[in-house]
Amino acid sequence: MKEPTDEKLIFKNLNIHIPPSPYPRVVIIGGGFGGIQIAKKLVNYKLQLVLLDRHNYHTFQPLLYQVATAGLEPDSIAGPLRKLMENKKNFFFRMSRVTRINPDRNSISTVIGELTFDYLIIANGAQTNFFGNKNIERNAFPLKQIPQALDLRSHILQNFEQAVLTEDEEELGALLTIVIVGGGPTGVEVAGALSELKRHVLPRDYHELDFNKMEIYLVEGVDRVLAGMSAKSGINALKYLNQFGVKVYLNTMVKDYLEDTVILDNGQKIRSRTLIWAAGVKGNLIGGIQEEKIKRGRILVDGYHRVVGYDRIFAIGDIAIMPTGENPEGHPMLAPIAMQQGDNLVRNLLVQAGIKKGSLKAFDYRNKGVMATVGRNKAVVDLPGGVHFAGRAAWFIWMFVHLISIIGFRNKIVIVSNWIWNYFTYDRGTRLIIRLFIPGNKSDKNPIKK
Amino acid sequence: MKEPTDEKLIFKNLNIHIPPSPYPRVVIIGGGFGGIQIAKKLVNYKLQLVLLDRHNYHTFQPLLYQVATAGLEPDSIAGPLRKLMENKKNFFFRMSRVTRINPDRNSISTVIGELTFDYLIIANGAQTNFFGNKNIERNAFPLKQIPQALDLRSHILQNFEQAVLTEDEEELGALLTIVIVGGGPTGVEVAGALSELKRHVLPRDYHELDFNKMEIYLVEGVDRVLAGMSAKSGINALKYLNQFGVKVYLNTMVKDYLEDTVILDNGQKIRSRTLIWAAGVKGNLIGGIQEEKIKRGRILVDGYHRVVGYDRIFAIGDIAIMPTGENPEGHPMLAPIAMQQGDNLVRNLLVQAGIKKGSLKAFDYRNKGVMATVGRNKAVVDLPGGVHFAGRAAWFIWMFVHLISIIGFRNKIVIVSNWIWNYFTYDRGTRLIIRLFIPGNKSDKNPIKK
Repeated sequence: MKEPTDEKLIFKNLNIHIPPSPYPRVVIIGGGFGGIQIAKKLVNYKLQLVLLDRHNYHTFQPLLYQVATAGLEPDSIAGPLRKLMENKKNFFFRMSRVTRINPDRNSISTVIGELTFDYLIIANGAQTNFFGNKNIERNAFPLKQIPQALDLRSHILQNFEQAVLTEDEEELGALLTIVIVGGGPTGVEVAGALSELKRHVLPRDYHELDFNKMEIYLVEGVDRVLAGMSAKSGINALKYLNQFGVKVYLNTMVKDYLEDTVILDNGQKIRSRTLIWAAGVKGNLIGGIQEEKIKRGRILVDGYHRVVGYDRIFAIGDIAIMPTGENPEGHPMLAPIAMQQGDNLVRNLLVQAGIKKGSLKAFDYRNKGVMATVGRNKAVVDLPGGVHFAGRAAWFIWMFVHLISIIGFRNKIVIVSNWIWNYFTYDRGTRLIIRLFIPGNKSDKNPIKK
Repeated sequence: MKEPTDEKLIFKNLNIHIPPSPYPRVVIIGGGFGGIQIAKKLVNYKLQLVLLDRHNYHTFQPLLYQVATAGLEPDSIAGPLRKLMENKKNFFFRMSRVTRINPDRNSISTVIGELTFDYLIIANGAQTNFFGNKNIERNAFPLKQIPQALDLRSHILQNFEQAVLTEDEEELGALLTIVIVGGGPTGVEVAGALSELKRHVLPRDYHELDFNKMEIYLVEGVDRVLAGMSAKSGINALKYLNQFGVKVYLNTMVKDYLEDTVILDNGQKIRSRTLIWAAGVKGNLIGGIQEEKIKRGRILVDGYHRVVGYDRIFAIGDIAIMPTGENPEGHPMLAPIAMQQGDNLVRNLLVQAGIKKGSLKAFDYRNKGVMATVGRNKAVVDLPGGVHFAGRAAWFIWMFVHLISIIGFRNKIVIVSNWIWNYFTYDRGTRLIIRLFIPGNKSDKNPIKK
């Protein structure tokens, strides 16, 4: 899917027109965790709300790896954005890409025309960062969007369908080997899920294959996994990965990926047809914000979420960088932070718009804990105050927190039934190649491109 | 997805090689209702089984229209074909396309090489028949495969996303108008489901749109709908469609479809961006069967499912035509017939292979009833012996029969929970445009192409 072609075909003769309103217009770019947190609340006030996103759904990214590994279907982790606005006449959704922000005339440019705002909230998140390596960008699988997860799922299953067709040992090795780059939560979780496929699911399907030849590598640049968590949790996660047969390479970087060969910085080469890239993210920057307001690929905001120098343009979540005493390099790119920032911005914006009384409040992040799962009965949890635990209890907490966090009663039901099914049957009902993945034809990378 | 490119990319340097076996090899082409009915049974005998399909899953086609209308996700109606063979060492699956049958040397040619057989069962079903109209083939939506259903779902939702962006009344009409061709079960069911979207689901999402402008047409060439059912059921279905606001045109044919305009044979033109083609099917013929063995696009078989003139090549289901006294033009193309033929062929094949004692039995179709649903509380059922009924009881029977017919406990659970959810909330949780549908870029049409 080439983007310019898409948009020419989809958006010809169409215009963004939003009807005039007696209320101030708040434009929100991005229906991620931050954007919908704000939309859900602001919709109840005398404001005209316009939400823009390139997808018509919200993605619950923490469970994306389960879509990629045939544990869940897309509808489990996606929620239609228009559901937020059911019967709300002051709420408008536009499935569109924002091409530029025009602070001088209080407007945004989109592929379907220009739209003015009274308040603008930039909440369009982050995209995969390939750090400039074009080979990796072209051939590795990122894991930020649902179509990418479906591509990866098809690709992995196709590799197994091909593996039964080859008698070439080297080819077989490349088909059965998966290399994951990045030892953060996504990398660890996808490695764990793939090892469960290897140990429990796929051998029943492919009796012709020797699963000892299937290798899962996790490559991490620093000396530990889960660098955002406590040392103890990192050690526990590493122990679980080892138990699950994942080969973890620490202090190692991937230099290049060419002709099914992953090249490490220590000179080692791994033949693999599947490189999963979870090694970094960068903000989805949009043109129109001056260079000096951008730091480390994110938009610089003050403690009140205002883009530096503007008082009606805000940024929250992964796209925003708010250097504080505690976090001089900005907060980590995590969903709870985007949501807490959304809450605080709602409060401030209502004051600023004269809807509520009070004074502006600076953002104060309250860490309620961080967690990651490796697999069945194996997870790690850090709570504030130096409380760490791991194992089955942590795994149940992980599941519980993810279940209550996902929006929509329907999603909760779908996920919990899939999890129960997967747990007791060691099965993955969604090991379906609904659409063939064609190499060189990856799904769109970013919800809202630069 | 251009087919030749796919295959070159996917199947390079690969070969179908199936290990030698002391048992006779049965090759089954197609994992539809007939194919899997046979595979499930034959796998328990001293036979080597090879199943080929272009998809790695079985599709429960009777509910495909619910995927297209955002009622179900693909995993509800798809079952991984390899699940049939779990831990069965004599069963091999190959995700491949058969290009030719070579009766002279008891082999088939596939895109991954040639394979010999002791017994061959052709069960690769039917595809949409556009009766040679290239405009319709290019621009209309068929509904035989899951990717087609997902294309249609994306397309319909995209049309609504575009409808809020246009101020041109004619354009708006084309976006909101859907024309369905063919008054068989698929046409009636999709028309009913779309009318439910119109009446209950979409207005909550699109408060900006006037849903009186949304029109659903059902165009049928003969003087009634559900021509395969009783006159009474046809009349009831028509009554329900009228109640649901579907405009039904009987005795009317679609002549052409050009530039968003559907041209009827009475000269009338309907502006519509969505033409759903459920007007006919034809067998998925494979080369190598002589012309005189093909009748009405299906392979001529005798009463024992043997392709005329061969005693080790069989055909069942939609691809086969078995003229009998009762059905001189062959049986209707229905799942229960394919399954009953599969059962009978299993029995005969075991006798022929010397595994079971007895004599060959000619096929005798036992009609257990035919049914179709129009929507919530509205269905029609014909039972043998001239029993017809309609309404809520028929609707419950329709749901019950479809639920027990679908393979897999997981599928049953997923479907029943979705149905309960959809019934009580009037919601459709899967109204997601997971992948943008790009006009002119339709998903693959046939599981196993000619």
